[in-house]
Amino acid sequence: MIPEHQRDVYRAFLEQSFRHAGMGDWLARLPEQFARGLDRQRHGDLPAWEKAVAKLPALPDKRQVQLDRDEVTVELELDDSRRRQSENLLRALMPWRKGPYRLAGIAIDTEWRSDWKWQRLAPHLSPLRGRRVLDVGGGNGYHAWRMAGAGADFVLVIDPSPRFYWQFQAVKHFVGDADGGRTHFLPVGIDDVPQGLGFFDSVFSMGVLYHRPSPLDHLIQLRDALRRGGELVLETLVVEGDETRVLVPGDRYAAMPNVYFLPSSRALVGWLEKVGFRDVRVVDEAPTSLEEQRSTDWMTFQSLGDFLDPERPHLTREGHPAPRRAVVIATRPA
Amino acid sequence: MIPEHQRDVYRAFLEQSFRHAGMGDWLARLPEQFARGLDRQRHGDLPAWEKAVAKLPALPDKRQVQLDRDEVTVELELDDSRRRQSENLLRALMPWRKGPYRLAGIAIDTEWRSDWKWQRLAPHLSPLRGRRVLDVGGGNGYHAWRMAGAGADFVLVIDPSPRFYWQFQAVKHFVGDADGGRTHFLPVGIDDVPQGLGFFDSVFSMGVLYHRPSPLDHLIQLRDALRRGGELVLETLVVEGDETRVLVPGDRYAAMPNVYFLPSSRALVGWLEKVGFRDVRVVDEAPTSLEEQRSTDWMTFQSLGDFLDPERPHLTREGHPAPRRAVVIATRPA
Amino acid sequence: MIPEHQRDVYRAFLEQSFRHAGMGDWLARLPEQFARGLDRQRHGDLPAWEKAVAKLPALPDKRQVQLDRDEVTVELELDDSRRRQSENLLRALMPWRKGPYRLAGIAIDTEWRSDWKWQRLAPHLSPLRGRRVLDVGGGNGYHAWRMAGAGADFVLVIDPSPRFYWQFQAVKHFVGDADGGRTHFLPVGIDDVPQGLGFFDSVFSMGVLYHRPSPLDHLIQLRDALRRGGELVLETLVVEGDETRVLVPGDRYAAMPNVYFLPSSRALVGWLEKVGFRDVRVVDEAPTSLEEQRSTDWMTFQSLGDFLDPERPHLTREGHPAPRRAVVIATRPA
Amino acid sequence: MIPEHQRDVYRAFLEQSFRHAGMGDWLARLPEQFARGLDRQRHGDLPAWEKAVAKLPALPDKRQVQLDRDEVTVELELDDSRRRQSENLLRALMPWRKGPYRLAGIAIDTEWRSDWKWQRLAPHLSPLRGRRVLDVGGGNGYHAWRMAGAGADFVLVIDPSPRFYWQFQAVKHFVGDADGGRTHFLPVGIDDVPQGLGFFDSVFSMGVLYHRPSPLDHLIQLRDALRRGGELVLETLVVEGDETRVLVPGDRYAAMPNVYFLPSSRALVGWLEKVGFRDVRVVDEAPTSLEEQRSTDWMTFQSLGDFLDPERPHLTREGHPAPRRAVVIATRPA
Repeated sequence: MIPEHQRDVYRAFLEQSFRHAGMGDWLARLPEQFARGLDRQRHGDLPAWEKAVAKLPALPDKRQVQLDRDEVTVELELDDSRRRQSENLLRALMPWRKGPYRLAGIAIDTEWRSDWKWQRLAPHLSPLRGRRVLDVGGGNGYHAWRMAGAGADFVLVIDPSPRFYWQFQAVKHFVGDADGGRTHFLPVGIDDVPQGLGFFDSVFSMGVLYHRPSPLDHLIQLRDALRRGGELVLETLVVEGDETRVLVPGDRYAAMPNVYFLPSSRALVGWLEKVGFRDVRVVDEAPTSLEEQRSTDWMTFQSLGDFLDPERPHLTREGHPAPRRAVVIATRPA
Repeated sequence: MIPEHQRDVYRAFLEQSFRHAGMGDWLARLPEQFARGLDRQRHGDLPAWEKAVAKLPALPDKRQVQLDRDEVTVELELDDSRRRQSENLLRALMPWRKGPYRLAGIAIDTEWRSDWKWQRLAPHLSPLRGRRVLDVGGGNGYHAWRMAGAGADFVLVIDPSPRFYWQFQAVKHFVGDADGGRTHFLPVGIDDVPQGLGFFDSVFSMGVLYHRPSPLDHLIQLRDALRRGGELVLETLVVEGDETRVLVPGDRYAAMPNVYFLPSSRALVGWLEKVGFRDVRVVDEAPTSLEEQRSTDWMTFQSLGDFLDPERPHLTREGHPAPRRAVVIATRPA
Repeated sequence: MIPEHQRDVYRAFLEQSFRHAGMGDWLARLPEQFARGLDRQRHGDLPAWEKAVAKLPALPDKRQVQLDRDEVTVELELDDSRRRQSENLLRALMPWRKGPYRLAGIAIDTEWRSDWKWQRLAPHLSPLRGRRVLDVGGGNGYHAWRMAGAGADFVLVIDPSPRFYWQFQAVKHFVGDADGGRTHFLPVGIDDVPQGLGFFDSVFSMGVLYHRPSPLDHLIQLRDALRRGGELVLETLVVEGDETRVLVPGDRYAAMPNVYFLPSSRALVGWLEKVGFRDVRVVDEAPTSLEEQRSTDWMTFQSLGDFLDPERPHLTREGHPAPRRAVVIATRPA
Repeated sequence: MIPEHQRDVYRAFLEQSFRHAGMGDWLARLPEQFARGLDRQRHGDLPAWEKAVAKLPALPDKRQVQLDRDEVTVELELDDSRRRQSENLLRALMPWRKGPYRLAGIAIDTEWRSDWKWQRLAPHLSPLRGRRVLDVGGGNGYHAWRMAGAGADFVLVIDPSPRFYWQFQAVKHFVGDADGGRTHFLPVGIDDVPQGLGFFDSVFSMGVLYHRPSPLDHLIQLRDALRRGGELVLETLVVEGDETRVLVPGDRYAAMPNVYFLPSSRALVGWLEKVGFRDVRVVDEAPTSLEEQRSTDWMTFQSLGDFLDPERPHLTREGHPAPRRAVVIATRPA
């Protein structure tokens, strides 16, 4: 039986499938994808996360939801006891990486100032109003709420992490119906998107490419998820250099074990063109600052500062160039 | 893309799938089942039927729908030209076998007086109010409308004939929303019902068993479509005799090529008990009369009278006993 | 890795697949079929049976094998200690139902005098020399050895019982290469034969039909395993009576729980004709005698005598007519 | 039905599958792989190639086969008419790219002096005697015959080009049984090798990596086809530079449209280590000479010389560095 927390996704997919056959194919796979993505074998804490969300207190209908602020904000009346209870439950879902959020007065200070990334991106985007958007590897959904706040018609986060799924559900508990049921989350990866879908007006892939052993195939998957004429927003780690400069770190990069190709932004532009994107442009490129990514009260593990060489902060502790990120926007030709 | 005329079925299945996992599995198969069931390769006239239904005139919202009369009746204002057009389009779907209907004053006099069968059955049924009902081999849906008229919550006709699908859609065009979206049709056979579904409160199989090469397997399929405690209504051709009397006609029976097992009603009771039904009782048994099944203005081919031996009307023209039908009601144990 | 005892089957299937595409398809399924058929989950004693066969002593090359006698006979020199060991291991595979065998002087007196059945059948068969033969439900393979003895080119027993598989392997240990590698066994049922195979010159189904819930489908499967022009030999339980007499016993028949349709032999002829066999004739019909099926030193459980009504031996203890068997031979039209 | 020219492959796979379960899985897929690989839809000339091989004249049993010379050589008596006929049929399979061959006195002068590559490679290989070898993208099989000549026990070429399949069959017609049935060809690509096979002692991939959109995945596939402790021989196009130098050419490279990653040999070593190879060493690296790859009487299309910039022969005509190749040998850890 399909549980409550999945039903909005099903209804939204069904309505989208009335517009596009491929979404019907995807709908047919949802039961298996949910079952796999939320399989309790995947993480010992999964039952605890599910329970934490289930225990969040019932909230008053009267609330003010602001999805177009730096902090994704839900204002509502909550007595102290319920606020404390809510905060404890939200903390049970830690670490919180993408944010910030302010929910019933509870400020969730996340590892990333994802709002800064959004500020750098937003001016370059085709206006999101009315668009169908896919956010690949979208974490707990922070950017998705911002996309809905910018008027997108249907926003779908996919991220294989079940923790992020439950963080998203927790935020959704506070947002309620205020987004008009436009924001959704599937606990799957890009490989679970039906091949050649050709549906979305905009596709975001931020912080994913360097985790993929085959970057060209990833770009092809992103291209094929877009309708013809649709827009890709790609953000990834890059290195400095000309169009033949590509770092493939050995064992680890900034303590991460699963890092593959770090191209220069010029090489990345070439790759995007090679797989058929047009109008490719780098709209932002900069080293990641220790202010943008750091440990907080809601993410108490090590963060960027710990992964750099203390003596030579332009290098990671493995001796690679320190994190530098580029945002590239490109169009799938019509 | 899912066409308009299928969307109600999808929405209904989605809502049912929130109550029962098996209906979600079935939902996932609908695209393939519709595609196969309505495949234009199946019958040369399929495009004509589809077009006929599409051309039916727009109807006024104000209408009176009566699903609890012998004639399934829709009363509404229609000018003469539109009525003539409607009648011509409905006739393009001939032959009409199950009925009768009266739609905007157009009386569809069908081969069968299916209302007579309903009258004999209805007093013996567990009350249909609130039940989920499957009508296997339900023809153009006449009995389904009657079930909705009796208060069923969800009525699903399955019949592999695409002609009946479009006849159903034509009637639905007249009924509109008056049934509260409770009556649905899938162009598939019993083999397309997910195995071991265990969902329906009532399952009807009328006029199907003798067409099945494996009657026991058919009874098992019907049993497994029912929830535990659910009710089967089975109607089929029988012969007279004791519990070891079973006719398997050779080439044809009453001109039909695909007729397999005709048990006595006592043998049939034994079969039902063998596959696990309980509380099995024969509620009706009688020869089929030439008044109940005959050629009409809406079914101009040969009918029962033509298939009997003119000299010895108690025999078919192949020399088998003339059609005799029994209705058996049985319960799947809890 | 494919174990030793399966390799002859693979090699034989590969050579047959050079003559018929369908056998290549089947070959491709052998790994899965062996794995499933010999899955140790299926019977707690399976490892013991496998071990018993593995422990059978190495035998001298010099031996005399006679597959055309009532007793399937292998004569060879064996010292007393090895003979005792062999007998103990063969007894570990009890109960032995089909036979008799005489292996290195060890007389296996089986529940059935299967040689009597063979004597009644053999005169009516198309000569087996050079034919490819399938024996459906062939038990431990007694009849298969007799078919090889009659000159068949390729004999395949299928029987889902893993005990019978290991009994067959035990006998094969004694027969060695003397049959020219023409006799094979797969631990599968008729449902595992690829649909529409159309390969075998002769198909035997003895003692299977009454165990099938759908007798017509079984006849169709047998027909489709035959090449056009091939010959079916069908033996099953029947009742006395005309062509509309069919017994479907309730719970049990002669203590067996899974018994479905027992037609009269005249009804059975009609069924065979209905599914397209031609030249259908009953070559033998008789009650099963207490001499032909009985408990022995190698099958110490209850047998036929225990399943009849002691007062009225023409009835089973459930009150059904006592076992009566017919053999019908039929041809798949060219 | 499995055709003659495939049967040796089936028999060889069956025997290998007795040693390794994975080869049984692969065997099961051969029918589908042959059907797809030799599907006449794939190339309009396929029927002509098949017919050319079928028309090759019957050859005397007496022949001398030398697989350890630069020219793969078969000496036998053939009258002039049959030799002319043979040469015409062999020319019907043009272009011939890998060689050279000398068959019944017919010298096939191929585009590549593949013997030169072999000479450079051979001293660095673990001795091939008794090994099971996979040659990925092995063209018409020239190197495979050399591997058999060096004593390999089972040599399997995979190459998706059906032309190369028929060139291999033509050569095999001359070689006959002289290789002891150790040399085989499947018309498939690396993606058709069962995942995680872990079977081969040596795997060669020469001239393939730069055609793969995902070089890391290719290296992983090669690794997984090897048994633990097995040896990879990888040859591919490289560029000069340090370990972060990687060329991904745009539209074309030396006129080839499907060229992806050209790493420096140092980068390539890093990639091999990243996916788990050990003892990685570059055993050869050099520009490709116009003597080693050129148009000939048996390959009359353009060749390397035509794809370079006439003014600046160290560049391709697209302006990329001219072809430079490295051979790397590596071990899958035990």
